[in-house]
Amino acid sequence: MSVNAAAKQEGPLALICGGGSLPLAVADHVAKRGRRVLLFPIHGAADPADFANRPHQWVHVAQARGFIRTARAANCRDVVLIGSLVRPALWQLRLDLSTLRVLPLLVQGFFGGDNHLLSAVGKAFEKHGFRMVGAHEVAPEVLMPEGTLGRVQPSERDRSDIALGVDYLRAAAPFDVGQAVVVANKHVLAVEAAEGTDAMLARVAEMRVNGRLRAPAGTGVLVKAPKRGQDLRFDMPSIGPKTVDGVARAGLAGIAVVAGSTIIAEPDLLVQAADRAGVFVIGESAGP
Amino acid sequence: MSVNAAAKQEGPLALICGGGSLPLAVADHVAKRGRRVLLFPIHGAADPADFANRPHQWVHVAQARGFIRTARAANCRDVVLIGSLVRPALWQLRLDLSTLRVLPLLVQGFFGGDNHLLSAVGKAFEKHGFRMVGAHEVAPEVLMPEGTLGRVQPSERDRSDIALGVDYLRAAAPFDVGQAVVVANKHVLAVEAAEGTDAMLARVAEMRVNGRLRAPAGTGVLVKAPKRGQDLRFDMPSIGPKTVDGVARAGLAGIAVVAGSTIIAEPDLLVQAADRAGVFVIGESAGP
Repeated sequence: MSVNAAAKQEGPLALICGGGSLPLAVADHVAKRGRRVLLFPIHGAADPADFANRPHQWVHVAQARGFIRTARAANCRDVVLIGSLVRPALWQLRLDLSTLRVLPLLVQGFFGGDNHLLSAVGKAFEKHGFRMVGAHEVAPEVLMPEGTLGRVQPSERDRSDIALGVDYLRAAAPFDVGQAVVVANKHVLAVEAAEGTDAMLARVAEMRVNGRLRAPAGTGVLVKAPKRGQDLRFDMPSIGPKTVDGVARAGLAGIAVVAGSTIIAEPDLLVQAADRAGVFVIGESAGP
Repeated sequence: MSVNAAAKQEGPLALICGGGSLPLAVADHVAKRGRRVLLFPIHGAADPADFANRPHQWVHVAQARGFIRTARAANCRDVVLIGSLVRPALWQLRLDLSTLRVLPLLVQGFFGGDNHLLSAVGKAFEKHGFRMVGAHEVAPEVLMPEGTLGRVQPSERDRSDIALGVDYLRAAAPFDVGQAVVVANKHVLAVEAAEGTDAMLARVAEMRVNGRLRAPAGTGVLVKAPKRGQDLRFDMPSIGPKTVDGVARAGLAGIAVVAGSTIIAEPDLLVQAADRAGVFVIGESAGP
């Protein structure tokens, strides 16, 4: 049975869309495989302009009724949740009866790590009979391959910085923290926790300006990896052209991610940005 | 033999002073014990106004000749290096012959972690026949005791956040990184690397404003601990009134440090600031 035939058998896919360009890229990949996609942009996260020319239905975080009715009527069983989502305030959530049933799960998730929040949302959908699926399962085209994208290659020094970053992330993994770290000359310069990768990169750029960092420009790497036990259906590390820009502004040499466990947003723009900035982008094999 | 008599036998103490109020506090404690103190403020780090009314001799980082001549003439063998020191640019260092002899050590240290830089400076002094001593060895009054300072006590929730922070710092310790971490509701919010504790606290405050953090004010703790194998003669974790202010602005409940391995700058002002802000400050026993 071909991939396209299998896709059709699975029924249409419900795609709940956070911010950024990734949700529509996934939608296009899935549609190309012949599977119907229903778009549910999230209020406050997705950009209305992106959805103006496509059928869609807005949803609120933690307001499940409208989504459930539409998805069931369309015979959707599989749900993908993708795109950026700033942690909403509990008092901004609009609660309905369908949501109240699973509220304890959400509250528990809300006060845990981001990973817990997303798993909790996923579990809530599963209570309503849906199956949560990772974007990479329905659109493997979005995954980072092994090896480099673009023209620039890491140096030997970059490779040893990458190895140290991978070791650090492995040690920190049990704490549901930092998917990312910046290492230069075997020195850990910055660790990401709740602030996000872009904010961490901005901090490194600032430390260069204020004199805290003295390593020459073109030194150092951003290393991103999934947390141990991270459920990749809900929260996969991702990079895009914006990440490349942040890395260039921070004066780093490049980016290393785990091949097959990292999503690439806008790969064409990412490669253009990397080549223009002289930044390498490498997918490392996951290792043992 | 009394402590004071022992102090006199050891000869005068050379105190190389970085920034902040701690160097002069140490000087006063040592002087009270009857030991003579020679002050060597560091250009670009110490504030000239603080030294206007005391005999002193300015020194440059990595320019050892003037220091060596004065310290030897005064029969100083013990040297304490204390206060804040922003990593200097190599091209800002003024090198002299005494320094050139130990330059490889300094260069090696310069590209390692901060810990390596300070140990390298210490080793360089030892090559010249001096003995590096920790501020806490000559002035134990500056050390954080076990238990709380001030009126506020940590809650049960704070205690479990402290435990998680201690576990995290233990896991990260082999990487010569982050002496500090912010934990709220068992969630690691921020990890300190090269940016320093004050910058990390400012980041937490900012995350409250921009909506990344939703834990209510008065939740969360700053946990500081020495790195594993850290040479406390050169680089001991320290807190002061400024740390309390940063913690209050970040909306945290308090500060936990390791008793006996943390320096308290300006303890009276720290307690006043903590009581005013409703912030606890606790010294935990080092544990097994």
